[in-house]
Amino acid sequence: MPVSYAAPDAESLYPVRGVRLGATEAHVRKPNRKDVLVMELAAGSKVAGVFTQNRFCAAPVILCKEHLAGGHEIRALLVNTGNANAGTGEDGLRHARESCEALARLIGCAPEQILPFSTGVIMEPLPVDRIIAGLPAGIDDLHEHHWLRAAETIMTTDIVAKGASRQIALGGRTVTVTGISKGSGMIHPNMATMLGYIATDAAVSQQALDSIIDHAVNRSFNCITVDGDTSTNDSLILIATGRSGNDEIGPADDDYVRLRDAITDVAIELAQAIVRDGEGATKFMTIQVEGGRDQAECRKVGYAIAHSPLIKTAFFASDPNLGRILAAIGYAGIEDLDVSALKLYLGDQLVAEHGGRAASYVEEKAAAVMQAAEITVRVDLNRGEAAATVWTCDFSYDYVKINADYRS
Amino acid sequence: MPVSYAAPDAESLYPVRGVRLGATEAHVRKPNRKDVLVMELAAGSKVAGVFTQNRFCAAPVILCKEHLAGGHEIRALLVNTGNANAGTGEDGLRHARESCEALARLIGCAPEQILPFSTGVIMEPLPVDRIIAGLPAGIDDLHEHHWLRAAETIMTTDIVAKGASRQIALGGRTVTVTGISKGSGMIHPNMATMLGYIATDAAVSQQALDSIIDHAVNRSFNCITVDGDTSTNDSLILIATGRSGNDEIGPADDDYVRLRDAITDVAIELAQAIVRDGEGATKFMTIQVEGGRDQAECRKVGYAIAHSPLIKTAFFASDPNLGRILAAIGYAGIEDLDVSALKLYLGDQLVAEHGGRAASYVEEKAAAVMQAAEITVRVDLNRGEAAATVWTCDFSYDYVKINADYRS
Repeated sequence: MPVSYAAPDAESLYPVRGVRLGATEAHVRKPNRKDVLVMELAAGSKVAGVFTQNRFCAAPVILCKEHLAGGHEIRALLVNTGNANAGTGEDGLRHARESCEALARLIGCAPEQILPFSTGVIMEPLPVDRIIAGLPAGIDDLHEHHWLRAAETIMTTDIVAKGASRQIALGGRTVTVTGISKGSGMIHPNMATMLGYIATDAAVSQQALDSIIDHAVNRSFNCITVDGDTSTNDSLILIATGRSGNDEIGPADDDYVRLRDAITDVAIELAQAIVRDGEGATKFMTIQVEGGRDQAECRKVGYAIAHSPLIKTAFFASDPNLGRILAAIGYAGIEDLDVSALKLYLGDQLVAEHGGRAASYVEEKAAAVMQAAEITVRVDLNRGEAAATVWTCDFSYDYVKINADYRS
Repeated sequence: MPVSYAAPDAESLYPVRGVRLGATEAHVRKPNRKDVLVMELAAGSKVAGVFTQNRFCAAPVILCKEHLAGGHEIRALLVNTGNANAGTGEDGLRHARESCEALARLIGCAPEQILPFSTGVIMEPLPVDRIIAGLPAGIDDLHEHHWLRAAETIMTTDIVAKGASRQIALGGRTVTVTGISKGSGMIHPNMATMLGYIATDAAVSQQALDSIIDHAVNRSFNCITVDGDTSTNDSLILIATGRSGNDEIGPADDDYVRLRDAITDVAIELAQAIVRDGEGATKFMTIQVEGGRDQAECRKVGYAIAHSPLIKTAFFASDPNLGRILAAIGYAGIEDLDVSALKLYLGDQLVAEHGGRAASYVEEKAAAVMQAAEITVRVDLNRGEAAATVWTCDFSYDYVKINADYRS
């Protein structure tokens, strides 16, 4: 079961004026499950996106980047699960284009106004005919209240649907921010995450929207890892429909920070939900690294700890075998690190200083901290003012089981 | 059980003139097991070493480097298991010095002529009194024929003792090269490995010995990974006693290459044995990356594949879910990689080209290859002449079990 996370109620995901969502069973890979999602956006919506930096990026990622870079007004998003359409070469690109063309014909826009997304098995041909055949049913299903249904549709090895929502008052108007995400394995986003879609009905300038997505992703999806594998398909999309009736928000406006922070909150909740639902996860770990010369070296240390199978299995076992954390800090790649200057904490307890175990350390107390479902590891590098946080989960028998069985 | 590897017979590990080995049960961590090893070297022996680059390197590693850098003639090596004496601060250094002093007194040399080594749990105080108390019994046990006994003594989570031996004729004399190693988890050597000791009775100049150890380690211990965790204690020691009676070999001599290659062969066998005995391993995987611009980028790709938990679990399951390999190549960090130019092979079978699955690919054939205990993955980056090989193992339930239970 996910760590301290349950699927949201349908009512807790507020509709976003100007966004309608529809799902259908297109039998992409398996029968009897919703696997195609259409998100229709009102005319005039603005869209920003960040995508995987994996060189083997999927065909739909290539098309998304093209359509956004071309400045086309985006009118719909099309998502399928069951097949990643990655490692599929020229055929994959053709299939992604065909699916955009089909949806564009049905809703009456140009193919460049569609953003396509795929998630699932890599290096298998996309069953594009079945996806296209399912589109009319997806369009019939379009509704403003279908956010939870959409979150369920984009799940793969996820156990729970992931969604988050906020409402804030901006300039006398109620503005809604609602988002959904999916992801559970192959999670180590680099500039983006698995799939995440966040929409607001606020009116926002394109420049402000681009700035907000950078801010939000660097504090959310770029801080999580399950297994260190950066996917071929990671995408985060931020939509602003402008239907709330507020004046358009630019980067210098007073409301900019409030909207940015609401969107960032939703992004953090969605990103953490992916870790809480990490494949086989039984623990949610927050790795706080502070006192670094710059954020990059803090992130190196945070990810060295978060990626170590030895540390992740020790947390699974609730065993305070914390020397493994010192080892990870030591190989994180900071050449001139003075190990005698740093401090390691588990929860509130000082574990190590002066290059070794702290005199005040009591293993029984550490063992008690390790029993909890949520654990914070804090490293003070004591050489600067920068900090970074990484969220991750432990490594259990079930991780092996899920990934040994995924295709079968 | 280790993958295609059994412990060597005592008779297959030829004695090296000038090296005597003795073991004892000092009860460092657990009773009823040999856990302290003394290796005594004849006067005039030359020694070279390479060590972990982990910034949290263990106290004995610091002392080894000091003693070697000081140019002292090394007369003995002292190894304990059960405790790594790493993350132990100033106390750890003092304990390591005390153990060197005690052994030096007993065999009649200076403390700087001893090299100390520790392996086991990190961040716990070394029980130096018990180690010192065990030294007389270790010295009583010294014998040229005790190589297998020595290999058994340095095991931790290893299932089998690891040793390799060669004899070659140099200048009319028979020269012996014999080595032992230990290691099974926390294996991702960076300039060295777990513990490895290789000795020859050849006479070799210090310059030639230094050159040989670099050559050998870069083709053996620096090509393996089990879990990507670089240990705090990795050490490889190469000893030349000069007792075979050959003329001293310099880097330009004809015999240099033959000796170097014999030592490299032993190093490769010892390094591969560590992977074959990797924690929970059921498969031995050779990752060959070729066609790179330089060796560094080939190694990046090799290690991205070898470290991916998704790939390692798929190999455990014998599931040819090979898209995961494309994803790992894509995130290995080659910025300008042209994914449409590379080729991926499983065994002899072409899996992917032109950015997608090869037309000739037959999954049933790949599935048959995946059933084998030894599997070769080959990547041709098709952008240069450089190549690199990485050896690794799969990721099984038993890896989690071993590391969740290691301390208990």
